This record gives sequence, C-alpha cells and structure tokens, in this order.
Amino acid sequence: MSVTLEGNMLVTGSNRGIGLELVKQLAERTGAEAHIYASCREPEGTRAEALRELSTQHPGKITIIKLDTSDEDSICAAVRAVNEEIGAGGLNLLINNAAINKPARPAPLSATGKKDMMEVYETNVVGPFLLAKMFLPLLQRAAERFSPEDHEGDMMSCRRSAIINISTVISSVKKCPETFSMAPMYPYRTSKTALNMLTRCQAEDFRKHNILVTAIHPGWVCTDMGGEQAPLAAQDSVLGLLSVMSSLSNKDSGMFIDWQGNSIPW
Amino acid sequence: MSVTLEGNMLVTGSNRGIGLELVKQLAERTGAEAHIYASCREPEGTRAEALRELSTQHPGKITIIKLDTSDEDSICAAVRAVNEEIGAGGLNLLINNAAINKPARPAPLSATGKKDMMEVYETNVVGPFLLAKMFLPLLQRAAERFSPEDHEGDMMSCRRSAIINISTVISSVKKCPETFSMAPMYPYRTSKTALNMLTRCQAEDFRKHNILVTAIHPGWVCTDMGGEQAPLAAQDSVLGLLSVMSSLSNKDSGMFIDWQGNSIPW
Ligand SMILES: NC(=O)c1ccc[n+]([C@@H]2O[C@H](COP(=O)([O-])OP(=O)(O)OC[C@H]3O[C@@H](n4cnc5c(N)ncnc54)[C@H](OP(=O)(O)O)[C@@H]3O)[C@@H](O)[C@H]2O)c1
Ligand SMILES: NC(=O)c1ccc[n+]([C@@H]2O[C@H](COP(=O)([O-])OP(=O)(O)OC[C@H]3O[C@@H](n4cnc5c(N)ncnc54)[C@H](OP(=O)(O)O)[C@@H]3O)[C@@H](O)[C@H]2O)c1
Repeated sequence: MSVTLEGNMLVTGSNRGIGLELVKQLAERTGAEAHIYASCREPEGTRAEALRELSTQHPGKITIIKLDTSDEDSICAAVRAVNEEIGAGGLNLLINNAAINKPARPAPLSATGKKDMMEVYETNVVGPFLLAKMFLPLLQRAAERFSPEDHEGDMMSCRRSAIINISTVISSVKKCPETFSMAPMYPYRTSKTALNMLTRCQAEDFRKHNILVTAIHPGWVCTDMGGEQAPLAAQDSVLGLLSVMSSLSNKDSGMFIDWQGNSIPW
Repeated sequence: MSVTLEGNMLVTGSNRGIGLELVKQLAERTGAEAHIYASCREPEGTRAEALRELSTQHPGKITIIKLDTSDEDSICAAVRAVNEEIGAGGLNLLINNAAINKPARPAPLSATGKKDMMEVYETNVVGPFLLAKMFLPLLQRAAERFSPEDHEGDMMSCRRSAIINISTVISSVKKCPETFSMAPMYPYRTSKTALNMLTRCQAEDFRKHNILVTAIHPGWVCTDMGGEQAPLAAQDSVLGLLSVMSSLSNKDSGMFIDWQGNSIPW
C-alpha cells in the first residue's frame, strides 16, 4: 500500500493506541520534508514514554506538543506553539484521534450519568470542533500554497490540506440495531454520531478553502479502548488508515469510510 | 385527522412555541381520562402566562410542572412531583420538545464557541437522555398495564408507552450538503444528530419493555426559534404531529419521520 502523505501533520492523543502508531508509521513512511506534531496531554509524564522514545529515533522529524482536547486554554497554547514553529507551509493534515469512552467498562443506562454524557462530548466532539476552528488559518495557508503540476487548483487531498476525524462504525445511526446490544455506550455513540455531523458540516464549510474533511473508522483495534478481544492490531489498522488517507480526493470530503476504504452509512 | 392519544402525557418546554400548542391540542383533542403534565422552566413567571391561562380553560386536565431540562436536580424534582400525582397508570407519553439554538442568530463558525457547543448539547441531548432514564419506571408501568383487546401483547404505541424526541430535518447527516448553507448552526445540528442516535439507542434498549421511541421533525414552524419566515403555523405542525403520533406502531420505533409521516434519512 502506498503512502503519499507529506508536509506538516498533527495527531491528537498520540502517546498510545492508534495515535502512537499513526505517529510511528508517519515518521517511518514519509519523506524527509514531512514533519509530525505529535500531541498528547502529558508530554513529560510516564504515559508519554513510548512517544518520547519514538521521537528520539527520528531526530528532527517529530515535535511533541502538549495538548488536552478537553481544555480550551490547552488547545490555544498548542495552536500557538505549532504556529511559531510551522513556517510558511502551514498545516497540511490534522488528525483528530484523541477520544474517550465513559463509563470505562460496558455499562447499562442505569450506570451512565450526565457527567459521562458531557465529558465524552467535550473530548470527542468539542475538542475536534475547536481544533479545526483554531487551526483553520494554518490549514488555509497549506491549501493556498499547494499547487504541484499534477493537481488541479480545486483538487483536495491529505497532502494539500485536510482534517481527518477518527470516528467509529458504532456511530452509524442506521447500523445501531445491529451494534447496540454488544456495545450500548450511550455517551460514546451519541458523541461520535455528532462528530460525523461535525465532519459533514466542516466539509461543506471548508470546501471553499480546498480543505478536505473526512471521517474514518479505524476498525476494531486492539488498544486500551478496543480491548484485548479486538481482531485488528494497531499496526494493521494504521497501515490501512494511511493508505486510505493517501487516496482521498474531492469526492471523499464529507464522507464516512473505514480503514479499508469502504463507505459506512450514516 | 384522528387523534387517539390518551393516558398520562408529559411535554417539556410547553410555555411557548410548539410545546404550548402541543399542550393546547392535547387538552382539546383527548378524552376526559387523559392528563397532561405541561412542564416549563418558570411556571410562575411571565413567560408561562399563556400556559397558565390554558390550564384554567381545562380544569383538572393540565398539571403545570417546573422542569429545566439542563438542570439535573430540576429533572429529579419534576420526576418526583409527577410520580406523586400520577398513580397506577404510569406515564404513557413523554414528549421531549424543549430545545435551544445557540448562538441565537445565524452565526459563522468564528462566532461559535465551546460554551455554545456544551450548552446546546446539555439541553437538547442530555436533558432528553436523563428524562428517559428517570421516567423509565413510570413508562414501564404504563407499558405493562396496557392490554386492551385490540392490541397484541407486544404491540407498541403512543397510547401505551412512548418517548417522542422532537428532532429536525437539519439533523440529517445525509442531507447536510443541501441544508448547511442556509443554516450552519454547528451546535444545534450536532446536538440534534446526537439526539437521533439517542432515539435509536433507546428504541433498541426499551423494546423489551414495549416502549416505543421515535424522532419527529415538526416542519419549519413559525415560533421564536423558527422565525417569522417559517411557512408552517404551530397549529398545523401540531395537527400533523399528533396525527402521526397516533399512528405509530412497532415498525416506527427507532425511526426518524416528519410531521406528515414521511421518513427522513439519517
Ligand atoms: N480501538 C478501537 O477499537 C476503536 C474503534 C473505533 C474507533 N476508535 C477511535 O480511534 C481513536 C483512538 O482510539 P484508541 O483505541 O487508540 O484509544 P485509546 O487506546 O484509549 O487511546 C486514546 C488516546 O486519546 C488520548 N486522549 C483521551 N482524552 C484526551 C484529551 N482530553 N486530550 C488529549 N488526548 C486525549 C489518550 O491520552 P491519555 O493517555 O492522556 O489518556 C490516548 O492517547 C479514538 O477516536 C477512538 O474513538 C477506536
Ligand atoms: N420552529 C421550528 O422551525 C423547528 C424546526 C425543527 C425542529 N424544531 C424543534 O421543535 C422543538 C420546539 O421548538 P420551538 O420552535 O417551539 O422553539 P421555541 O419557540 O424556541 O421554544 C422552545 C421551548 O423550549 C423551552 N426550553 C428551552 N430550554 C429549556 C430548558 N433548559 N428547560 C426547559 N425548557 C426549555 C423554552 O422555554 P423558555 O421560554 O423557558 O425559554 C420554550 O418553551 C425544539 O426541539 C426544536 O428544536 C423546531
């Protein structure tokens, strides 16, 4: 599978799980000009050890950025930090990967409360909403600048300027009757369905800037969130995700697809 | 159009707009046994004058209940108040009508903030989530009790036990490209799309109790929220809504339809 991503990219929640693997493969599989802003809540803490180790293996290619997507001030500070470093190229690719699922273990309605609903929405939807809004000038800069010979002026791609919102198949309202009993998860489901609407709104809103916006389901992946029974290794999920991202163009903006490129109904 | 609703019904946000008209027509068009819990934020205030006036026109048929759907304590107190009065019949119909749209006037992304996103979700999604959860015992009571000769044991209806979540056509992710430019409304859209997922989750979850759950779009209605250009009077919208509600059965649980009974894509 070919990966043709390049430029400046930012990944949220990149200290473990799918986010960490995204940074690893992006670092390994992109050219010397590519730069990755790997963001996480606690760059100095023990939870970011693997990410710090990865960044020393790729000197100069990864900048670790402190970013808590549930905290507006933290988002502002992260945007400022990236802005200072990024230069004329702007931001080519924003991957909203960070997310939470509360209550942590499968819980019935009776054990799910207002706090779960609000916190999950804050991290999974409002975080990506604010990040897109605040990074918009840098995404626009990247989109305006991009005009290689093989691209039309209105051609969108993840190389040019794009937002990828990591969604999940269980956000599909249509498929809910098939998926509900194995994973009720009211707060997580409603948040990810809202993220799909956000994706589609952004795709409409940012089309005029030639910024592509797509929601992608990474598969059921063996991570802390996915659990040990998950059939897919993070490595294989991310191989698929990067291949799919590399192939996206205008027709895919505002769409919802999986790590193999198959479309998922709303 | 025939209205065959009966029993105990609760409407949120019933002091003005579609909610007030729902209470009015329910009071006029149901039998002597029907009772309406008309809830609003400030039963004593000037904003509830029309509702108080309506209730005096139908002595003994309407109980005004104080209920702020964004406030968990207020929801608890309202459930307690209804519980004390409602008796063996339980609650037959819960209509989640209250909702907000922020910022109040059409605003671009740049003028929409975290607070708007969080507050709209709290009222439009978390309120209905908590109301369904807390009224579940009363809805179950109504569902268990109901067994008229003309109904199968597993037949669901709004006469038996149902939750109606008032949604909007602009929550349709599929239709977003058609509707976005005339009404961007990120917070409202993402909240109502989440409400659709909530509806479908509840429909799955509560089917075992024979509680029907359906999302309905009331049309574009001339109210404070709909604005003056709206083509539909609240009276006509509610005529349609009540007729549609009267006709709902098993196949409609977990569905999204409009005030004329047409289905809307997710
Ligand atoms: N695993 C699956 O089967 C699966 C399936 C469908 C979709 N997804 C989606 O894929 C994405 C990654 O999931 P995963 O399986 O890798 O999850 P994970 O193993 O639980 O990792 C979640 C990541 O998000 C970060 N995060 C959580 N809250 C954050 C916040 N407020 N600010 C910044 N970072 C935050 C975590 O950082 P900390 O270490 O600081 O907590 C961690 O790096 C998520 O969007 C998830 O919904 C996963
Ligand atoms: N009008 C339309 O064209 C249209 C179209 C599609 C869908 N809808 C939906 O139809 C429903 C009714 O809309 P509408 O046009 O009648 O709106 P509206 O005229 O703005 O009335 C909204 C009602 O909700 C109440 N409310 C707001 N926040 C509340 C809270 N936290 N707790 C309790 N009540 C609260 C308001 O009470 P206060 O007086 O206390 O503020 C008011 O009674 C909403 O769900 C709306 O999304 C409307």
